[in-house]
Amino acid sequence: MKGDTDMSDTHHDGARRAFTAAVVTLSDKGSRGEREDRSGPLIRSILEENGYEVVETLLLPDERDQLEDALRRLADERQVNIVFTTGGTGFSPRDVTPEATAAVCDRMAPGIAEAMRYYSLQLTPRAMLSRQTAGIRKSTLIVNLPGSPKACREDLGFILPALGHGLGILLGVDGECGSDGEHGYHHHHGH
Amino acid sequence: MKGDTDMSDTHHDGARRAFTAAVVTLSDKGSRGEREDRSGPLIRSILEENGYEVVETLLLPDERDQLEDALRRLADERQVNIVFTTGGTGFSPRDVTPEATAAVCDRMAPGIAEAMRYYSLQLTPRAMLSRQTAGIRKSTLIVNLPGSPKACREDLGFILPALGHGLGILLGVDGECGSDGEHGYHHHHGH
Amino acid sequence: MKGDTDMSDTHHDGARRAFTAAVVTLSDKGSRGEREDRSGPLIRSILEENGYEVVETLLLPDERDQLEDALRRLADERQVNIVFTTGGTGFSPRDVTPEATAAVCDRMAPGIAEAMRYYSLQLTPRAMLSRQTAGIRKSTLIVNLPGSPKACREDLGFILPALGHGLGILLGVDGECGSDGEHGYHHHHGH
Repeated sequence: MKGDTDMSDTHHDGARRAFTAAVVTLSDKGSRGEREDRSGPLIRSILEENGYEVVETLLLPDERDQLEDALRRLADERQVNIVFTTGGTGFSPRDVTPEATAAVCDRMAPGIAEAMRYYSLQLTPRAMLSRQTAGIRKSTLIVNLPGSPKACREDLGFILPALGHGLGILLGVDGECGSDGEHGYHHHHGH
Repeated sequence: MKGDTDMSDTHHDGARRAFTAAVVTLSDKGSRGEREDRSGPLIRSILEENGYEVVETLLLPDERDQLEDALRRLADERQVNIVFTTGGTGFSPRDVTPEATAAVCDRMAPGIAEAMRYYSLQLTPRAMLSRQTAGIRKSTLIVNLPGSPKACREDLGFILPALGHGLGILLGVDGECGSDGEHGYHHHHGH
Repeated sequence: MKGDTDMSDTHHDGARRAFTAAVVTLSDKGSRGEREDRSGPLIRSILEENGYEVVETLLLPDERDQLEDALRRLADERQVNIVFTTGGTGFSPRDVTPEATAAVCDRMAPGIAEAMRYYSLQLTPRAMLSRQTAGIRKSTLIVNLPGSPKACREDLGFILPALGHGLGILLGVDGECGSDGEHGYHHHHGH
């Protein structure tokens, strides 16, 4: 799957509507027009190839309050199914994407970022410096991707099939095979 | 060790009393009698085969307050050495087992859930969706297992030997080989 | 790299001043003079072999307040680039190093401890019991190492090269290759 942008999974058959997605790029220079954002458009393109409907893309500076506001609006008002961030997860003093993500989430999903680091650690020991996280706000899954386009592509190839299943459970459109299909919630089940 | 329910470790020799354990199944349908709980009885059986004394099993709905109350009672009043939960660690809106666990723990033990996810990730990428956690409340270790009986059996096979050592340290009945045997606390050392 | 104490990386060339480091050993018996601290001196020696300037070493009892005070002073007043702790990360009731570390950090770096556990899990399943963590306070990276000298040596061999890069980013002396060299902060950039 690595390096391959066709990561279609069985969750997007003809009978089911596409999951909606938003992509938020965190970049001080990008937001000032001093640097081209290559990761955001790449993520959008990979998501669309995999059947997601990308309803919004944003380019924000590395400001925690601004990112938190955007994530809350995307989850609560736009009600997108999944938000991917790119950038702001490293050691630079301005990197605050994980902190903003954790602040708006009701429930964390630590295994997603762990899996990306575990996967990347096979490629480079610097993967241990990634501070990426992931979590759920209401009915929206928020996942931090790395900043570089190459790492975004690699990580999406690794996580996208499983995320599709997770979204199905979160939105009540998939049975929970892993736990004996116990839950059968419908989309927008009140919470 | 995988698929083998005999995971006895050296910590249960004749001279030492058995560790006490409780098993809590989280299942809305199970608690309403609409679904048979297969994971709880399986965990009990595996624990007993490995020399644990299972002093209580519970079947609760996916309600955070109810689970927190049960965990506090099992730790503070019954003073069981280890509590295993099963269920409620996924993406369904009702899954709140990790949040209840973290809320009652004094100290987290993130490596236990990481190890289970790392192990399961070799079997299926969906393992990254597990939100399992583990931690310590006073003298009680609390560990979230997955919901499915098959995954419970696999994960227990992987973690039970190490957990026995951890309990020995927590209760002061084992030396800390890993850190030069520095600590020598006795059982129910005040805290 | 395993078992080899020469872990020099390209970040310490002649033109750049050495990173400063402090080493804090947590040990009740050590602090009472009842046990020799072997891990602290070993860590100091490995760091010096790798070009770090070790400006302070401490031997403290397993007391959370005392450790938090020491970490704050080392970060805010001494402004050391990196603090390594050793000890206090296990299951003993007195082990509170991860809690003290998290309490003083502004931003956590979970991948560093994950990587050490992942690495150690190949050697022993007991690695899952490690509660080690790592994080950033202002311009100082704080990393919990295990208690045993052998494990300290192994873990440093695994993490030190990547940490050097992380420190370069944190202090603004390295470009962020991983995210396209976007950030160019200077040392002691205000935050």
